[in-house]
Amino acid sequence: MIAATAQLYPNVVLGPGAEVQEFVLVGVPPRGRKPGELVTVIGRGAILRSHTVIYAGNRIGEDFQTGHGVLIREENKIGNHVSVGSHSVIEHHVRIADHVRIHSQAFIPEFTILETGAWIGPNVVLTNARFPLGYKVKEKLKGPWIGPGAKIGANATVLPGVRIGAEALVGAGAVVTRDVPDGAVVIGNPARILKRVEELSYPEDPSMKPYGRKKEV
Amino acid sequence: MIAATAQLYPNVVLGPGAEVQEFVLVGVPPRGRKPGELVTVIGRGAILRSHTVIYAGNRIGEDFQTGHGVLIREENKIGNHVSVGSHSVIEHHVRIADHVRIHSQAFIPEFTILETGAWIGPNVVLTNARFPLGYKVKEKLKGPWIGPGAKIGANATVLPGVRIGAEALVGAGAVVTRDVPDGAVVIGNPARILKRVEELSYPEDPSMKPYGRKKEV
Amino acid sequence: MIAATAQLYPNVVLGPGAEVQEFVLVGVPPRGRKPGELVTVIGRGAILRSHTVIYAGNRIGEDFQTGHGVLIREENKIGNHVSVGSHSVIEHHVRIADHVRIHSQAFIPEFTILETGAWIGPNVVLTNARFPLGYKVKEKLKGPWIGPGAKIGANATVLPGVRIGAEALVGAGAVVTRDVPDGAVVIGNPARILKRVEELSYPEDPSMKPYGRKKEV
Repeated sequence: MIAATAQLYPNVVLGPGAEVQEFVLVGVPPRGRKPGELVTVIGRGAILRSHTVIYAGNRIGEDFQTGHGVLIREENKIGNHVSVGSHSVIEHHVRIADHVRIHSQAFIPEFTILETGAWIGPNVVLTNARFPLGYKVKEKLKGPWIGPGAKIGANATVLPGVRIGAEALVGAGAVVTRDVPDGAVVIGNPARILKRVEELSYPEDPSMKPYGRKKEV
Repeated sequence: MIAATAQLYPNVVLGPGAEVQEFVLVGVPPRGRKPGELVTVIGRGAILRSHTVIYAGNRIGEDFQTGHGVLIREENKIGNHVSVGSHSVIEHHVRIADHVRIHSQAFIPEFTILETGAWIGPNVVLTNARFPLGYKVKEKLKGPWIGPGAKIGANATVLPGVRIGAEALVGAGAVVTRDVPDGAVVIGNPARILKRVEELSYPEDPSMKPYGRKKEV
Repeated sequence: MIAATAQLYPNVVLGPGAEVQEFVLVGVPPRGRKPGELVTVIGRGAILRSHTVIYAGNRIGEDFQTGHGVLIREENKIGNHVSVGSHSVIEHHVRIADHVRIHSQAFIPEFTILETGAWIGPNVVLTNARFPLGYKVKEKLKGPWIGPGAKIGANATVLPGVRIGAEALVGAGAVVTRDVPDGAVVIGNPARILKRVEELSYPEDPSMKPYGRKKEV
């Protein structure tokens, strides 16, 4: 179902069962490209909520969802079962694996890599330019790498090129300036290792451990 | 006045004097609900600025205002004289009392409670999931409680279930991990108590105290 | 080229070569003003991307660009070659000099001054109210001053009236509570001086200095 006010540019291939809501644009040509010059592929069962903008040249898997007012720039590679929350911005040349969930109002710059099952909290800001406007900055851009199953807490900031290990947990509001080992919990500004995810438990029930057993999704 | 490009779903009850601007959607059905299945009530004198999206099942009082591009999910209870700033996101099952002001680009998750006269600064992020994707996380969601007259400074982060006392002030950029007593001023990451709001004064005129007397709104 | 779904209010003067994309509003009257009462001037070669809203009474120079979903309130003065990234909010009575670049999802409050060539990173929050809802707060509003060539890192917060010196660099996630000298690098919450910009170098090539020589833009 494609809303009457939505606009699909030429050369957009939408899988079966897609829902494209009001005031959405899909296949917008990036600067210097003509409409339809780059193919845009979105797999079966996509839900693109209102006011979302998706540029041309994206390759997106099945069961893709956006919230409202999402912006996805050109030439990203996005796996299956990915959701991008309302008002988030994904720049270009980002690689997002299967089962990644990006929450609301996040910022994901070019050259970021999000591995399988990574979780990006609301208002999280990833970065890729160590020295903005600096000498050779364009050559030196380096996105963060967010490992499989890693979780980045709300409003955290991750510096350029930083690697967040598999299953690691970055606390809300942390500013991560160095690589984080697999399974570590980091908090603060600058972020420091607090403990390991297996050591976490619910304060009201210390025997209940959130991680280190079969996960709920 | 309802703009020609705005769309009201069935079963939306708008009070007299409402202004609904361009590219607005009101009464959007949440997943699994049919259009019009949930009633949406917005009291007299509402101003819904352009590109705003309001889901079905909200009960909203008089003199309600949104900025541009606001998103309000389903089944919230919102009092009188409330404003929600541009680009802010309010999730579902949130309770907002009278005279609350939410500034721009804030994020308010499900189960948050904002008491009378609370003030939420720009880009503030409240949270409700202590352990994202963790075991039983959905059962353990707990929104913050923001007491009457409390102010949350710009770009602050408040952790799940944290209680901010009445008239307390959270400094800009603070990361609040523990409950804040009534009338306390907290700053930093993690936030620590600095002083009480009655002790604050304008640096250029130390005899002028901002709080502890009749307030301007 | 003005998209069919874009709306220009009366008394908007767009220079030659303008591109106004879908679902854009230009010249929106602020509260208490009639459509067309305030003139809106945007110089030659502007690109206003989809879902952008620009109020009346702005004076904007040549080669102006907005990303998607940008909001610019009334009566700002904006120079030549300025870009405002997707989803950013510029309030009213802001002064922006030539060659300023504001990235995505930033918040720029009233009375801010951005000098020539300043760079504002993604999700940066500038502030102007020291004591929200406090006594005389409206009379005491004071925006930050961001000096020429200064760079404010991603998700940083700058407190009201703070002055960031020329060519200074504010680290990502910093909370800046005091004035920053020209050319200083500050990081942390609260922000402290780390070094000078001339002392910075790329970690993988310490002989390569990003600043203190001819800059790339």
